[in-house]
Parts: sequence; C-alpha cells; structure tokens
Amino acid sequence: MSRRAAVIGGGVIGGGWAARFLLNGWDVAVHDPDPEAARKIGEVLDGARRALPALYDRALPPEGRLTFHAALEHAVDGAAWVQESVPERLELKHRVLAAVGRAAAEEAVIGSSTSGFKPSELNAEGARAIVAHPFNPVYLLPLVELVGDDTPCARADAILHEIGMYPLRVRQEIDAHIADRLLEAVWREALWLVTDGVATTAEIDDAIRMGFGLRWAQMGLFETYRIAGGEAGMKHFMAQFGPALAWPWTKLMDVPEFTPELVELIAAQSDAQSGHLSVRALERLRDDNLVALLRALRKADSGAGAVIAAHEALLPAHHTEEPGAEPIETVHRAVPQSWTDYNGHMNEAHCGELGAQATDRFMEMIGAGPDYVAAGKSYFTVESHLRFLQELTAGDRISVTTQVLAGTGKKMHLFHRIRHGDTIAATVETVLLHVDLATRRTCLPHEDVSTALAAFAGRHAALPKPAAR
Amino acid sequence: MSRRAAVIGGGVIGGGWAARFLLNGWDVAVHDPDPEAARKIGEVLDGARRALPALYDRALPPEGRLTFHAALEHAVDGAAWVQESVPERLELKHRVLAAVGRAAAEEAVIGSSTSGFKPSELNAEGARAIVAHPFNPVYLLPLVELVGDDTPCARADAILHEIGMYPLRVRQEIDAHIADRLLEAVWREALWLVTDGVATTAEIDDAIRMGFGLRWAQMGLFETYRIAGGEAGMKHFMAQFGPALAWPWTKLMDVPEFTPELVELIAAQSDAQSGHLSVRALERLRDDNLVALLRALRKADSGAGAVIAAHEALLPAHHTEEPGAEPIETVHRAVPQSWTDYNGHMNEAHCGELGAQATDRFMEMIGAGPDYVAAGKSYFTVESHLRFLQELTAGDRISVTTQVLAGTGKKMHLFHRIRHGDTIAATVETVLLHVDLATRRTCLPHEDVSTALAAFAGRHAALPKPAAR
Repeated sequence: MSRRAAVIGGGVIGGGWAARFLLNGWDVAVHDPDPEAARKIGEVLDGARRALPALYDRALPPEGRLTFHAALEHAVDGAAWVQESVPERLELKHRVLAAVGRAAAEEAVIGSSTSGFKPSELNAEGARAIVAHPFNPVYLLPLVELVGDDTPCARADAILHEIGMYPLRVRQEIDAHIADRLLEAVWREALWLVTDGVATTAEIDDAIRMGFGLRWAQMGLFETYRIAGGEAGMKHFMAQFGPALAWPWTKLMDVPEFTPELVELIAAQSDAQSGHLSVRALERLRDDNLVALLRALRKADSGAGAVIAAHEALLPAHHTEEPGAEPIETVHRAVPQSWTDYNGHMNEAHCGELGAQATDRFMEMIGAGPDYVAAGKSYFTVESHLRFLQELTAGDRISVTTQVLAGTGKKMHLFHRIRHGDTIAATVETVLLHVDLATRRTCLPHEDVSTALAAFAGRHAALPKPAAR
Repeated sequence: MSRRAAVIGGGVIGGGWAARFLLNGWDVAVHDPDPEAARKIGEVLDGARRALPALYDRALPPEGRLTFHAALEHAVDGAAWVQESVPERLELKHRVLAAVGRAAAEEAVIGSSTSGFKPSELNAEGARAIVAHPFNPVYLLPLVELVGDDTPCARADAILHEIGMYPLRVRQEIDAHIADRLLEAVWREALWLVTDGVATTAEIDDAIRMGFGLRWAQMGLFETYRIAGGEAGMKHFMAQFGPALAWPWTKLMDVPEFTPELVELIAAQSDAQSGHLSVRALERLRDDNLVALLRALRKADSGAGAVIAAHEALLPAHHTEEPGAEPIETVHRAVPQSWTDYNGHMNEAHCGELGAQATDRFMEMIGAGPDYVAAGKSYFTVESHLRFLQELTAGDRISVTTQVLAGTGKKMHLFHRIRHGDTIAATVETVLLHVDLATRRTCLPHEDVSTALAAFAGRHAALPKPAAR
C-alpha cells in the first residue's frame, strides 16, 4: 500500500487531515479550488507541528511531502486514502465523490468528513464513499466515526490506527452518526437557555467545563453514571434518575427558531466571553490544553490517553543499530510546550525526566524492562548529577545518548547526554542500585541482565570518561 | 463566622460535601438516620483524602473534626453552612428544610443539593433555602450552581471560594438549573441510541471521550465552536451549522419510554463495558484522572485549573516564620498519585520538580518572584545534584527546607532537603546563575535581591555544610 493520501477540500477539517497524515510520514496531495488553500493548510499545519509531536515520548517519523494539485484527478492518483472535506451540501458532495470514484484506485479508501449525511445519501448517485467523520482539531483528537460497507471500513480502520486515531465503527447508518446527535441535543438546549435569557454563552461553558466536562473527557456518560449509582450499580442509578424523563427538564420537544436576532445574541455574548483572544490564540490555548489533558490521561492508560500510548508503541525507536563502541541512543523526541516554564525554556525537572526516560529505555535494552519489573526486580536511582549547558525550547527535536560508566554487581552507573542538533544541551550522570521490589532492599540482578550490562560496560570501556563530574 | 458545616443526608453527595469542608479545615456535623452513614461517609472521605490534596503544590490546612448527630438540631447548631442532600422527593425536602430553618442561625447558608427543584418549590412551605447544586465527586469538581435570593447566595459564594469551589450563579430559576438540562438532553438522546440499537453504552462513551469530551473539559461548547468558525468567527459558525436545527438530527422531540426492558438493556451493556472493574476501582480511576486533568489545566491557568491555582494562592504558606539561622521551609505539600512510577514510589524526576519548586519559592522570598521575572531578570539552574535516600509514596505529606550555601554576585548555591516526618527522603543541591532574559546572558541581580540573598547566606553561614557532595 502506498503511504499517500489525497485531501479534497482544504479548510479547517481538510487541513487537519492533511496534518495528521503528513506528521505520520504520509505524503499528502491536496485539491482545493480556493486560492487561499495553501495558506490555510499551512496555518493548520503550523498548529499541528507545534502540538502533535508533544503527545509522544518518541519522535514521529519524518514528515511526508505536501503537494497541491489544480486537477482533482492528479491529487487522487496513487492515493491509498482519499478524504473529501468540502462544504456540507449534498449535491456538491455527489459531484466531488463521483469524480473521486472515477479517479481513485479500486482499493483506495474514499472517506467523507460529513458530520450529518449517511453513506446511502452520499452514494445515491453511484459513488463508493464511506463516512470517516473526524473531530476538530483533527491532528489531536483521536475519534473518527466510520459508517459504511465492511470492506472499506476495515481498510480505513487499519490506516487510522496507523496514524494514531481511534476509529469508532457506527454499525447502523443514522443522521448525524453518534457524537453529533449528542452535540446537537446540547446545542439545541443551550440555544434555548440563551434565547430565554436563563444563561449566557460564558455561563453555559462554565457549567460544562467546571463540572461534567471533566468527567466526560475520560469516561463519557454511562461509565460516569455507573459510579454515581454507587455500590448498587447501574440499575440503581436508572431507578433514581429514570423518572426524570417524564419531567419538564428540557425544551428539546421544540426547536428554537434560527433567527438573525438569535445569531446576534450568541455572537455578542461570545465576543464578550472570548473576544479578548484572537481565534489563533484560542486555538493555541485549546491545543496546549489538549496536549496536557492527553498526556495526563496517558499515565493511567485511560480513554484517549490509551490511544496515544498504543500508537507510540507502534513508532519505531529511531535508532535500532547494534550496540557498538559509541554511546547508544535511548531517547528521540520533541520537547512539549508543557515542559517549558516562566523562563521560556525547558524546565530543569524535565531534564531529570529525560534522564529517567533514557534510563528506562536502557533498562529495556539490557532485559530489565516492564516484564522484569513486573516480576519483582528493578533499579532504583540513588544519585543524579545534572548539568544544564544550553537552553531547550518547545518543539526542539532532541535525542539522548547513554554511556555506561560502570555496571557490575548491584550497581549501574550511566551518563546521559541530551543532544539538540550538534550541541549537548544537558548531561545527566546517574547511579542506580538493583533492588528486590518485595523487600525494597538491594540485591544482585538476574544473570541475563548482569551479562547484558557488563557487555555494554565493556564496549564503552575505551570511551573517555565525562570531564566535570 | 464559625468554620462549621452541617451535612444533612450522608450519601455520595452529602459525603462529598463533608469531605470538601473537612479537608479545607472546617468542622463537619452530620445528621443521617441511615445506620450505615458513618461507613459510607468514611469511604467517600478516604477517596477525598487520596485525591484532593494532590491537586495542590501547597498543603491544605489541618483537617477539621467530623461528628455524627442523631438529632438534626444538634448537627445544625452553630453551623455557618447547612447542606441538605436527602433523596430527590419534594415532600421529604420540605420536611427536612423546615426543620433546618427552625434550628439554623439567621445568617447561616441553607443549601440544597437538589439537581432539579427550583428554590420556589423548595421554599413553598416556608423554608429559606437556596439551591447549591454540586457535581460528583464533590471533593474534586469545582462547579456549584447557586440559585436563590441575593443575600444568601452572596454569602454562599464567599464560602465556596474559600473551600476551592466554583459557584455559578443561575440568575433565573428553571427546572434542573443549567448543567442538568444539558445532561438530560444528552441522556435522552443516548437512551434513544441504545433503545434503537444504533450504539451500545460503550460506543457512546467512546464517542464522547475520544472526541468532544476533551474539548469540553477545558472550554465548554461555545468557545470551542467559536474556534471552529475560524477567522470568520461565531457568526460564520452559526451560519454554517444553524440550519441543522431544522434537520432530523435528534429524536428529542420525543421521550424514550422508561421501561424495565430499557433498564435491563442499559444495565447489561454497562456490565459488559465496565463490569470487570468494581465501583471502587472505577472511582479511583476517575479520581486519578480528574487529578491529572486538573493539574494539566493548571499549567495554562485554564478553566477548572485556574480555580485550583486561585484557591492555592489563598492557602497559607505553612511556615511564615521570620528567616532565622535554620534552613527555611520552602515547600509543604502532599505527593500526588501521578508523581509515582512503576517502582511504586515517587519518580526521581519529581524530586527534581520539588527542588525546582523550592527554588521558585526561595526566589520569591528574596524578591525574585514572578514580578521580577516578568520585568526581565531571572535565575537559571546550571547544575543540580540529587541524592535519593528514602522512598516516598502517594499521599505522603512532605516539606522542603532550603539552606543557602553561597549567594554572592551572579551565583546562588542552594541545598534543599526533602523531608518526610523525621527523615530526609532526598536532597537537591543546586547552583544557579542570574541572567538577563532578553540577552539570555548572565548579569548581576538587582541590588534588593543581592542584599536579601546575602542576608540569607549570612544567617546560614554558621550551619554545617552538607556532607556528601
């Protein structure tokens, strides 16, 4: 399969798809008649380059090649995935998807970003598209709703996993799929609250983000309510709150009228709430928060955080060279924005974190990885010495090389160099002792580990020792 | 004003209120006829003790005193806040709130946790309650919807801020206030999706947490959509998606029938989704995730993260003693669960973080705090030496004391001891240089800073220097 995607329609959503593919090493060919398309996609791509690599503790593959094509057929030619993201007008989608169907390879996935139309509607005039409905920002949020035939959906599923997304197969076609039905329900109720003067847009946003929004970011609706049912479980919860269905807790039995006055009211309240920040600034804030939230969820391997962790495990460790006489590369990654501090550079604590990551990776290399730890033995750091030589800033692609200074008995003595381009930005010298996790006391490592560690120490024995210790 | 709260009804919500007050130093008197009340509140309190202190980089005040009272009047006596959290039956609330009204002080806040009733309904028989509607878990989520008269709401507002919550004044009484109207809309639509066989509870939860749930945790609905409108803003977004109001994107014009079959269906799907975890385990997962999410949002001072930061600024630095001849306390806090690693103890990187926090606090003490940094000067760490002496685990209350080893010219040389009870768990020796943030080059500090630093160095000159360096 080629790793080439075609993006038809280059707005915020099309640009997001382009960024997601490019940063995962795919070539992307764009077709969009808008003369501003290149600029618009460039801006989305800037945002993506700033945010997506920061999710991972390994570097993403080298970026793919981005090209623009005046002819749809040229963009589609040779693509394994063609994504249509044109405006939400059915006759336009029919026209574009028909042209894509004629130009695309038989086995190509043809996805539509439509938030509302069903595959039967999209394909009413002979196209062969599936719905692949993403969420903005496409380069950070994992969810893609897939609706359509089994064979193309299975192909799409595999590719989406490869580019770090979370395909959710919608088994039955329905207007607006799943997520947008929930969003539409909230949107309608929220418009009523504003129309009736009960709450402003800012108050409604606070009602969400100070409360249940934080629950939904990790567990969604039902799992949260399962907990609320307490020891008695889901049935108890249903018994408690089910009757409210009959109560007048919603105005959704009616639809608010979409008038110019309503648009004015919402827009004015939104200006009062967020107008002090440009859309660009809001985007950066949203992306920084998303990165921080996703990194937070990674630790518990929970929800979207688990998707990031699973994707990272698929990323090749950059260097897989045979261990030789030189220090070995143990980390290759970008500096996340969340690692920087008030001085505008990477905070010292994250230098320590990089050292710890390098040690973890080195432990894997000598056979003392997660399985070894799970079996009850590990290394504890007893001492570290950090030197900060050059500043690092958000987005810097850095690597760490590890030199073994000593590795006999219970002791492991490592020297990590944090490298940025040709310079050494920091060094972390660290001494660890092997321990039994049950007794929390030191002990000798397993023979395989001793042997692998000694081999590293032997290969590095001729290297000059680091100077200032 | 006394710092004493009465909690009437001790389930999950009442217990959450009790925990929120207790951990913020208030005494709490509970009245609940349920013989299991003490056990149930104890369990909620265990969860709160594990999670709430982990939000902050300073220690919370000493915990208040928890008492149980068979007579409602005894519980209410002397309380500045009385919170009713009995089951959602209006005649029961009337009875309880009438008794509370007779027993409570004139100026006491009388809050009801009702998720649906309006103040006019609660007070129909002469009670004087306001709605103070919290969100589960009450000890972690900041939102409290306040509905009712101005005077008690203003009093409630002040107290809620003091205990780290986010009061949202609902200006117009309405069934289910604001947040539960949005939740009810989603709940009804979600029940339709399950009833119609479109999606399971697990699929619906994924549709939320892999996508828009992550947006809502930080920004809510309208600010997110403002961004989606792109450069053209909110009006453009409305123009684009407003027309969908007329489309059949929801079944909410009708209400799903609440049948035993529906309860069975939901409960069975929920079991398949989450039944491998006990409710206790789900609660811990939820709380760990909430702590991690809230800590992530703190960094950008965003949404609920900003509430935590603002509350922390109100917490007294534990020791405010005059600087003397002894090392000065710079940090006093609990170890968050998110700081621990696969070895089951606090990860070394967070020792470095503690050292950095201690340095930041010390910089404030010598007049080189945030204002000084904002004005363009700061200290950069050039070298750190960490020694790990004792393991620390989640929840440990620790402090850091800082000794000045040298402080002349551009140089500041500090020795931080991380203390847990009577033991020293780790030490961080660190050398910093004063820099100009514009040129990124070293320079002499402002005279006030030099003088304050020299004074510390002078007071600490007679202290023995730390041994192993």
